[in-house]
Amino acid sequence: MKILVVNGPNINLLGKREPEIYGNTSLETINNELLEFKNSIDKDIVLEFFQSNHEGELIDKIQNTDASGIIINPAGYTHTSISLADCIKGVNIPTVEVHLSNIHSREEYRHNSITAPSCMGQISGFKKDSYKLALLGLYNHLKNL
Amino acid sequence: MKILVVNGPNINLLGKREPEIYGNTSLETINNELLEFKNSIDKDIVLEFFQSNHEGELIDKIQNTDASGIIINPAGYTHTSISLADCIKGVNIPTVEVHLSNIHSREEYRHNSITAPSCMGQISGFKKDSYKLALLGLYNHLKNL
Amino acid sequence: MKILVVNGPNINLLGKREPEIYGNTSLETINNELLEFKNSIDKDIVLEFFQSNHEGELIDKIQNTDASGIIINPAGYTHTSISLADCIKGVNIPTVEVHLSNIHSREEYRHNSITAPSCMGQISGFKKDSYKLALLGLYNHLKNL
Amino acid sequence: MKILVVNGPNINLLGKREPEIYGNTSLETINNELLEFKNSIDKDIVLEFFQSNHEGELIDKIQNTDASGIIINPAGYTHTSISLADCIKGVNIPTVEVHLSNIHSREEYRHNSITAPSCMGQISGFKKDSYKLALLGLYNHLKNL
Amino acid sequence: MKILVVNGPNINLLGKREPEIYGNTSLETINNELLEFKNSIDKDIVLEFFQSNHEGELIDKIQNTDASGIIINPAGYTHTSISLADCIKGVNIPTVEVHLSNIHSREEYRHNSITAPSCMGQISGFKKDSYKLALLGLYNHLKNL
Amino acid sequence: MKILVVNGPNINLLGKREPEIYGNTSLETINNELLEFKNSIDKDIVLEFFQSNHEGELIDKIQNTDASGIIINPAGYTHTSISLADCIKGVNIPTVEVHLSNIHSREEYRHNSITAPSCMGQISGFKKDSYKLALLGLYNHLKNL
Amino acid sequence: MKILVVNGPNINLLGKREPEIYGNTSLETINNELLEFKNSIDKDIVLEFFQSNHEGELIDKIQNTDASGIIINPAGYTHTSISLADCIKGVNIPTVEVHLSNIHSREEYRHNSITAPSCMGQISGFKKDSYKLALLGLYNHLKNL
Amino acid sequence: MKILVVNGPNINLLGKREPEIYGNTSLETINNELLEFKNSIDKDIVLEFFQSNHEGELIDKIQNTDASGIIINPAGYTHTSISLADCIKGVNIPTVEVHLSNIHSREEYRHNSITAPSCMGQISGFKKDSYKLALLGLYNHLKNL
Amino acid sequence: MKILVVNGPNINLLGKREPEIYGNTSLETINNELLEFKNSIDKDIVLEFFQSNHEGELIDKIQNTDASGIIINPAGYTHTSISLADCIKGVNIPTVEVHLSNIHSREEYRHNSITAPSCMGQISGFKKDSYKLALLGLYNHLKNL
Amino acid sequence: MKILVVNGPNINLLGKREPEIYGNTSLETINNELLEFKNSIDKDIVLEFFQSNHEGELIDKIQNTDASGIIINPAGYTHTSISLADCIKGVNIPTVEVHLSNIHSREEYRHNSITAPSCMGQISGFKKDSYKLALLGLYNHLKNL
Amino acid sequence: MKILVVNGPNINLLGKREPEIYGNTSLETINNELLEFKNSIDKDIVLEFFQSNHEGELIDKIQNTDASGIIINPAGYTHTSISLADCIKGVNIPTVEVHLSNIHSREEYRHNSITAPSCMGQISGFKKDSYKLALLGLYNHLKNL
Amino acid sequence: MKILVVNGPNINLLGKREPEIYGNTSLETINNELLEFKNSIDKDIVLEFFQSNHEGELIDKIQNTDASGIIINPAGYTHTSISLADCIKGVNIPTVEVHLSNIHSREEYRHNSITAPSCMGQISGFKKDSYKLALLGLYNHLKNL
Repeated sequence: MKILVVNGPNINLLGKREPEIYGNTSLETINNELLEFKNSIDKDIVLEFFQSNHEGELIDKIQNTDASGIIINPAGYTHTSISLADCIKGVNIPTVEVHLSNIHSREEYRHNSITAPSCMGQISGFKKDSYKLALLGLYNHLKNL
Repeated sequence: MKILVVNGPNINLLGKREPEIYGNTSLETINNELLEFKNSIDKDIVLEFFQSNHEGELIDKIQNTDASGIIINPAGYTHTSISLADCIKGVNIPTVEVHLSNIHSREEYRHNSITAPSCMGQISGFKKDSYKLALLGLYNHLKNL
Repeated sequence: MKILVVNGPNINLLGKREPEIYGNTSLETINNELLEFKNSIDKDIVLEFFQSNHEGELIDKIQNTDASGIIINPAGYTHTSISLADCIKGVNIPTVEVHLSNIHSREEYRHNSITAPSCMGQISGFKKDSYKLALLGLYNHLKNL
Repeated sequence: MKILVVNGPNINLLGKREPEIYGNTSLETINNELLEFKNSIDKDIVLEFFQSNHEGELIDKIQNTDASGIIINPAGYTHTSISLADCIKGVNIPTVEVHLSNIHSREEYRHNSITAPSCMGQISGFKKDSYKLALLGLYNHLKNL
Repeated sequence: MKILVVNGPNINLLGKREPEIYGNTSLETINNELLEFKNSIDKDIVLEFFQSNHEGELIDKIQNTDASGIIINPAGYTHTSISLADCIKGVNIPTVEVHLSNIHSREEYRHNSITAPSCMGQISGFKKDSYKLALLGLYNHLKNL
Repeated sequence: MKILVVNGPNINLLGKREPEIYGNTSLETINNELLEFKNSIDKDIVLEFFQSNHEGELIDKIQNTDASGIIINPAGYTHTSISLADCIKGVNIPTVEVHLSNIHSREEYRHNSITAPSCMGQISGFKKDSYKLALLGLYNHLKNL
Repeated sequence: MKILVVNGPNINLLGKREPEIYGNTSLETINNELLEFKNSIDKDIVLEFFQSNHEGELIDKIQNTDASGIIINPAGYTHTSISLADCIKGVNIPTVEVHLSNIHSREEYRHNSITAPSCMGQISGFKKDSYKLALLGLYNHLKNL
Repeated sequence: MKILVVNGPNINLLGKREPEIYGNTSLETINNELLEFKNSIDKDIVLEFFQSNHEGELIDKIQNTDASGIIINPAGYTHTSISLADCIKGVNIPTVEVHLSNIHSREEYRHNSITAPSCMGQISGFKKDSYKLALLGLYNHLKNL
Repeated sequence: MKILVVNGPNINLLGKREPEIYGNTSLETINNELLEFKNSIDKDIVLEFFQSNHEGELIDKIQNTDASGIIINPAGYTHTSISLADCIKGVNIPTVEVHLSNIHSREEYRHNSITAPSCMGQISGFKKDSYKLALLGLYNHLKNL
Repeated sequence: MKILVVNGPNINLLGKREPEIYGNTSLETINNELLEFKNSIDKDIVLEFFQSNHEGELIDKIQNTDASGIIINPAGYTHTSISLADCIKGVNIPTVEVHLSNIHSREEYRHNSITAPSCMGQISGFKKDSYKLALLGLYNHLKNL
Repeated sequence: MKILVVNGPNINLLGKREPEIYGNTSLETINNELLEFKNSIDKDIVLEFFQSNHEGELIDKIQNTDASGIIINPAGYTHTSISLADCIKGVNIPTVEVHLSNIHSREEYRHNSITAPSCMGQISGFKKDSYKLALLGLYNHLKNL
Repeated sequence: MKILVVNGPNINLLGKREPEIYGNTSLETINNELLEFKNSIDKDIVLEFFQSNHEGELIDKIQNTDASGIIINPAGYTHTSISLADCIKGVNIPTVEVHLSNIHSREEYRHNSITAPSCMGQISGFKKDSYKLALLGLYNHLKNL
């Protein structure tokens, strides 16, 4: 069982700059912890990591993956990308949308997600644990198909 | 560590009526599976379950709990209750909002949550697993305080 | 055939106060006239009356009724209660929404009904006769099921 | 006592085309059943039937009627015709607005009625029975003037 | 110099019904006073009067007129008829829009005029004198072309 | 195979007035070119032309046609007529909406079409060729049914 | 009979600058023509002219006038000044609002008038003649009180 | 003269939790200070205190009171409860709405009050003194009836 | 302790005109009663009264005052003046906004206050007593600083 | 005469996945049929095909083409890309926008096109034939320049 | 070459009060630094400074200036004054709008400028340097006319 | 001191096409003039130029720059790119947003900037000089840090 973990624009900045704002956790750390966590669930899960600031590359990647499930943090594209939403719907692979912060307690324009209706569910506000919860939820869902 | 699991209006109908719509899982089953799941995490967690169709009773309960964390599915009050949102903010207990369905792929008026900004995070779309993911996320958060 | 007649907040004030505004007809009179009217249709219809100012009690009552049909005047909750709307949809009992006054010729915010989409139909503007028309319409509907 | 029964655009299509959508009941059947029903109330009621797809003809008819009461299904003009609303208000004849379907559970733009504020009441969702209930309500109202 | 005076829906009801609301002045009186007034300006002006409740007839009339100027009270179509607005723009005859009442102090939806942008000017609130002022303004305009 | 070509309000003015705005092409020319064009596709297609400024006449015509397909330029009614939209949906004949100009580059209120959702497709901006493209698209569609 | 003619901000620029835009007619010319016109109606009318760019001065002037009627061109304050609207309502002197241009064919934000609901009527689009028509309408109104 | 002092949801939390946010003043202290203050005005005033988190209980209480005046802090229900607003209007007892904080300098959705139009006045921003000012204003009003 | 009492546009009309609408109380009476009332609180309070119809003069006055507190009735500027709001915030003197009528039960556009967020609190609906309550509330606040 | 055929995001998925939704027609088939069709019009037309999921690549391609006309299906970028709209306007090459489905009968946010105002026309709803009609319309237009 | 530097309401408060908010730079300092800076560009530029809290005085000043260019900080009037915008457009003198702070990162209602469309450009966010950049830009523009 | 000058989509078209609209100034000319201008300020400033039509490339470039300040013309992305705004905020390098034209006098949707709140300031309307003013403002800001 292969799970594609997709991160959108600026997620690569995590932990490298402005630690007082974004914390000290880098994307690398998030990914490593996620690898550990998946081993605690099922060692046979394969995780593939992908990050891009390009809307088009995110779409290309999702169109061409052979994964059974997708975890995606669309970041800024969450609120603007109909194309990304169409893509997730088009490939028909169970997808979970995650956000590090609670998007409902941030600016008004971050409350609505254009991509979430194409996903099976959404998890927000648990910081790096958002990805872990998404993996567990997605894994259980895929096992029950 | 005590966790209060609060369910709002009409959640008590689950599994009893219209199984073709809401599935065969009753609230009792959800609660029992959650008890099993918490044992797999940490047997010392105590779960208290509460369901009410009354906005006021939900507020009373949350005001008077001695729990360390709250999992709440505010159901219909998610989109209308400023009072419930004020209450969650007021008691200052880490709270996770859960939804069985993906509220972002339902009617427009279900996309926005009035209560979520008072919570640490939100999980939607994983059916009964939404509660389990919430418990795991809340547990990890409380351990790290 | 049992029909539950539910009245929401402040309907109990009818005829008791401010007769110059709300007329001299009390809720008791409305109910008595409705009993007479149902006898003229079919003596075997059983009417159960319920009034409450509590959103939660209205939901509890509807969840627990064994009636074949419901007539409801949700009053102020008509325009605010997603929970009541979810409840009516959830119990799957044919329900008619009634209003004493013509809600379309009152304040802007009274034009839209949140509960009506969960009902089979809506009758407004016939004063106490709104209930009678609702009973006749509901009765005919139930007989044809 | 004469009652004018006015039907707006496309109501003449009922039962003739697309029976799987609009049912098998034609406007003629609705009118005939209404005649029977009025006899069960009071044989001295006279019903006059009028249908037109022309906004202007509907206004002309209402301006020139000598009826004591009007039952109108404005169909598509319900949501667009200020002129029809002005007309109903102008002739000052008690009028009841009816709709076959529950307009509140259809498209957003069908929820609001421009003509209803000029009417004494509105009935929607009872299919062909909507007309009968309207007749009964209007008859009771006219008798009590 | 021929001036076409066009009156829209329900203006024919003036003075005939509900004198306590619309006053005792009939459309005939308005027209007769306008004839007198035009004689005081210039006896060679020819006035043609037209009233219809049909949007299409109003458009047909304006398309086929050989008048040099038009005075129009579009009544209820003021706020809904893009077709009438297109027509006035299309025939390219100087047109003045009049209203008996001050549309700015009535319901919100009567504040905006869809037809006015196609006209050279608008006069509202002078009751029957609105037509006289329109005639004078239009006459002066046409003389100066 | 008979195709009904319906033109709405003010289309009859084309080429007769204001040639500097609307061009020199009259509706008659458009129709004649369309006849020539249909011969180049299939001589057995029968075209019936109809133009009216009356919303009601457009609805009457569509309700009573025996054509296999409809090409309609609803002109000003495009943006206001729910009744026309209901009619097109009701008769269930494949219909193509055409516009001479690109409605998307005109006034804001011309961007949205109320009638288009009832049609199989929409073509705008090709001037008189809009009708030809509509005919070709409709013909191919009907042949493949 | 004294009539106060009030002109708001920037009306004093008329004819002095940008004649290609605003024409060659100065405010002085408008006033002089208005004096001539009032003599043709009734020599006993007294006109008082007042222009200011200050919202407060316009209010002061209207509060302190002993005129029987007011003609006002509020210019830019038409769309922003609740205070001026309150003032006109407060002094209870019949007031006519005038505009040189047709405000309905200009920018969206010029379509709505905040001051018009406090006035007896509004005239727009007749250039300098707007004032003359206002004077005639106001004079007729005052004579009939 | 009896005055009912009603406090809505979460006001009972005052001073008990989060003193850094809500201050150290408990509802008990507010009530005691109000008792002292009323003695300085008129010892014969009787104050009755009521707090509830239940919308329905607030309505029940107001419907059944024999007080001459009401002071109410509807808290979260201020912005959502049409039922509470209908109730205050229905019982026809002079009512003053109070808020501890200045609701106009808080979140957008707290600027508008649904209940205030049913009240004689509103006082916000004076912290515990809001209740005292309300009492004085209400007392003066009742004495002058 | 000096308190500046500022009244905005048209407040100077009170009691002089239209007593059937605005009552017989003049601004002078309000001011005199306020002087009496302040003596009952603390004779050492100095009241300075200022009224102007000019937005700019209101700003000038507030910028140049040496008062310890301000009571302001911005009247029509309440809903339009960002400049006045900026001024109150800028001078950093505790300010109370008052309104004679209950602005929440008047026209929609009077519900929102642009100036209130710059003030410590707002009092509306107590007629002339609004000023007295404001004085008491402001006095208590200043004493506790 | 060279025509550039540009397809936006996810159009490359056509026919490959979810044939029950998108049909069995692949983009390759569409392109091949279009080649055949262009031969039936004029063999000298050269078609160049381009598809990308990247907004930037679509802009680069259009900026650098030497085509005489463009057919574009902007897919998801239709409703979000001001940059693409600016590009089409900037290169000043006649462009036709096409959509496979009728965008007016899909979700609300698909009704408006940001790119269409930069194009000469728009065709939607004819499935693969949308491209053929666009080619014919564009060809006729270019021949007449 | 004379440049008029206009400052609107409350700019005169700069540096005098609340230095922790507005900084220690007074308007006098800004003006003096601007004089120095203009000498570094061209000693023959003449600067005239004007500040007022009165909308009308700002308009009067701009109407009567003989300057070749204007730098204006309309402050609070930026977002409310159609009259000021009309004035700037009317005098037809190249004008640059400046703001000390970045208005786009402040409250929502400060994002839109009513006056900016009448100006040649806008500069915001450079604190006192905003004026210097405006002077340089305006000077270059005027030299190139 | 290194300054990165970033230009968004379609800015590379400047001067090459449609000189009657965009002028004859190419991006190369703008850059060359900017180099000259920076030498007049401080020869040690290093300018790096970057243009792309790709949202993702603009983000990549800004994330990876070692510049002390950024001048950016986001062009079409100004109004749509939350991702670009997040990026500018994330890298925490002082950034100035520039526009060649006055965006406030163009289409409604160009008035609001999504990227500007992440920048220190915005300059619009000075054509190629917008960049020079931005450089001067940014240089002064960086020197004073």
